[in-house]
Amino acid sequence: MTPKGFLFSTAEAAIKKPGRKDLALIYSRVEAKIAGTFTTNRVKAAPVRLDMRRIRSAAGQAIIVNSGNANACTGRQGMKDAGEMTVLAARALKIKPSSVYVCSTGVIGAPMPMDRIRLKIPELAENLGRHSLDDVAQAIMTTDTFPKIVQRRVRIGKRTGVIAGVCKGAGMIWPNMATMLCLLMTDIAVNRKTLQKALLNSVNRSFNRITIDGDRSTNDTALLMANGMIGNREITEKSGAYKDFSKMLDEVTYELSKMIASDGEGASKLVEIEVRGARSEEAAERAAFSVANSSLVKTALYGNDANWGRIMAALGYSGVPIREEKIDIRIGKVKVASKGVSNGRDKEAGEALKNKKIQIVIDLNSGKKSAKVLTCDLTEEYIKVNADYRT
Amino acid sequence: MTPKGFLFSTAEAAIKKPGRKDLALIYSRVEAKIAGTFTTNRVKAAPVRLDMRRIRSAAGQAIIVNSGNANACTGRQGMKDAGEMTVLAARALKIKPSSVYVCSTGVIGAPMPMDRIRLKIPELAENLGRHSLDDVAQAIMTTDTFPKIVQRRVRIGKRTGVIAGVCKGAGMIWPNMATMLCLLMTDIAVNRKTLQKALLNSVNRSFNRITIDGDRSTNDTALLMANGMIGNREITEKSGAYKDFSKMLDEVTYELSKMIASDGEGASKLVEIEVRGARSEEAAERAAFSVANSSLVKTALYGNDANWGRIMAALGYSGVPIREEKIDIRIGKVKVASKGVSNGRDKEAGEALKNKKIQIVIDLNSGKKSAKVLTCDLTEEYIKVNADYRT
Repeated sequence: MTPKGFLFSTAEAAIKKPGRKDLALIYSRVEAKIAGTFTTNRVKAAPVRLDMRRIRSAAGQAIIVNSGNANACTGRQGMKDAGEMTVLAARALKIKPSSVYVCSTGVIGAPMPMDRIRLKIPELAENLGRHSLDDVAQAIMTTDTFPKIVQRRVRIGKRTGVIAGVCKGAGMIWPNMATMLCLLMTDIAVNRKTLQKALLNSVNRSFNRITIDGDRSTNDTALLMANGMIGNREITEKSGAYKDFSKMLDEVTYELSKMIASDGEGASKLVEIEVRGARSEEAAERAAFSVANSSLVKTALYGNDANWGRIMAALGYSGVPIREEKIDIRIGKVKVASKGVSNGRDKEAGEALKNKKIQIVIDLNSGKKSAKVLTCDLTEEYIKVNADYRT
Repeated sequence: MTPKGFLFSTAEAAIKKPGRKDLALIYSRVEAKIAGTFTTNRVKAAPVRLDMRRIRSAAGQAIIVNSGNANACTGRQGMKDAGEMTVLAARALKIKPSSVYVCSTGVIGAPMPMDRIRLKIPELAENLGRHSLDDVAQAIMTTDTFPKIVQRRVRIGKRTGVIAGVCKGAGMIWPNMATMLCLLMTDIAVNRKTLQKALLNSVNRSFNRITIDGDRSTNDTALLMANGMIGNREITEKSGAYKDFSKMLDEVTYELSKMIASDGEGASKLVEIEVRGARSEEAAERAAFSVANSSLVKTALYGNDANWGRIMAALGYSGVPIREEKIDIRIGKVKVASKGVSNGRDKEAGEALKNKKIQIVIDLNSGKKSAKVLTCDLTEEYIKVNADYRT
């Protein structure tokens, strides 16, 4: 159920180590509209800088993507290498280099093994259509433990379109952005400004509300290609279909976000933190992130310890003007604290923490706004994965 | 070599569990000047709130301190309990309750076991002088693996004074403040305003520049008592002796800070991160903290992986307007990156990471200001300590 007119291929280029798919190509039979959003980190990887320039045209036909090496902190050579990847792909596909986008994920600060990548690009172009979007999802994994793919049908007038996306996450997950890479595609025709707007809105409600470890990557990228191959009338913000399209895009990105959060490096639990009763959505989000980023909260969740005092402490340093004596905290279905003090139900709540999916609801009782963020627990496995990442 | 006129005692009150000293009393034979600085967390423990009120008088004669329970998030009962601890100590010592300060550290959100504490306070007063400052350092430990005590002589005119301090740290360490508790005392006479100023200056250059896990406590407190028992003329900011006094206070607090950083929960290494070449000291400090708080950097240090790309990424999201292509990074004595790109010396630097003390120097090459912060690596042990803290 991939969107019409998109072809995929993958290859093994031994970028970090041999024996796995680490290079992929996404190609649309016709030139597509393309929207993108990128890391806010001031240190931006070469492919991010290249794509940020190209996206101004809002047009594109292919994305070449690799795992194993982030092509970040690689100076001028890195920019040359990113450019060369698109030139070689364009040549093999017989399209203009400016229609090709490039994404990289993996180790920072190491030169790209261009000799090995160069060899594989013609093969990628030849094999287009022989591989699936699932293969692409596999090829972009780094420390992810499972491939992340979501596909949804959406009715646009009398036609049916598809929105599909793959992403990879795992570590270095914090807004803005949360995904290291998310590649979305649809066969629905969407106006260029509308496409960019819809992407930003969806990303703000999904990937930008995940946190794993508070780190933000140099490579975060979300791209959305719309090739219009179902032949609908181009959707604009005023179209009736805009709502359906953007709602489905929200769903696709939120589902992908949940996959990322539940696959946080070493994570054993998916945790949703909701802050209610805030004066503004911004304050709610800020308070929720403060809790979600607290190493002490996350280790307590891992240890099935309903240590709500650590939640209070994280709210206290969030920068949001909270009133301790007004705060209610619920862990799972157990209200552990009311008006800032214990209900003596910590043991019961500790039992609730044994679930794989945990919901924490914090009511500041100071307003009407709320926000949810997704995170995971912090485990010994996180340390292991990250201490040994390059070895 | 404790300062003149200070007496100490400790007791076992089974606050968290039996079989260890968890209650201590510090008493000055004469009323002292006292200065204090407290957590910036909006959720402040009851003893912090009480001390903040009392410190306005700048006078005090005793400090009662317990570990095992933080008396935080305990509502009105918590305030009553903190007050009662000072009233009972004052009664036993035959001084006014307003001359007694109280500090607590330990579990948040649990009521104080006042029945057990109440019983032990008369014993504490009776035993004054039978125990040492080392015993106090022991009694205030929570997850600390060793007691932290520093004592230094300082020449004031023709007399010799002593500045001594104990502290406890371990987890939840981030400015402002870094210490959960730091109790300082001196027998040198210092004017009240001068005492407060000297304490703030020292704390800003020491405890406020440590980070273990980015969390800030509800209980952080530093108190400094000066009883003037060496009989010097009271030091003011204009005294020649002010410089000697404050320099020695800096040394005492910095030494205590290093002990805290090297005893971060689960830490295997003490890490000093220095940022140079910044436009302002504030920018240097902010950039250094961004690196010091990065879980990815800290796990790489633990794994002896000179993954300087993670350092670059943390600089990139620090909020400081850095220029990637200007940055030099040194790990130990090995310059791993120059002008933002690799020097191909990561393996060599990985060897340097096997030391127990690591220095990382980052030159932004954008100005003349610098700042140092202290931190530690992030290990599986941190997770274990914090996942099981209450069990």
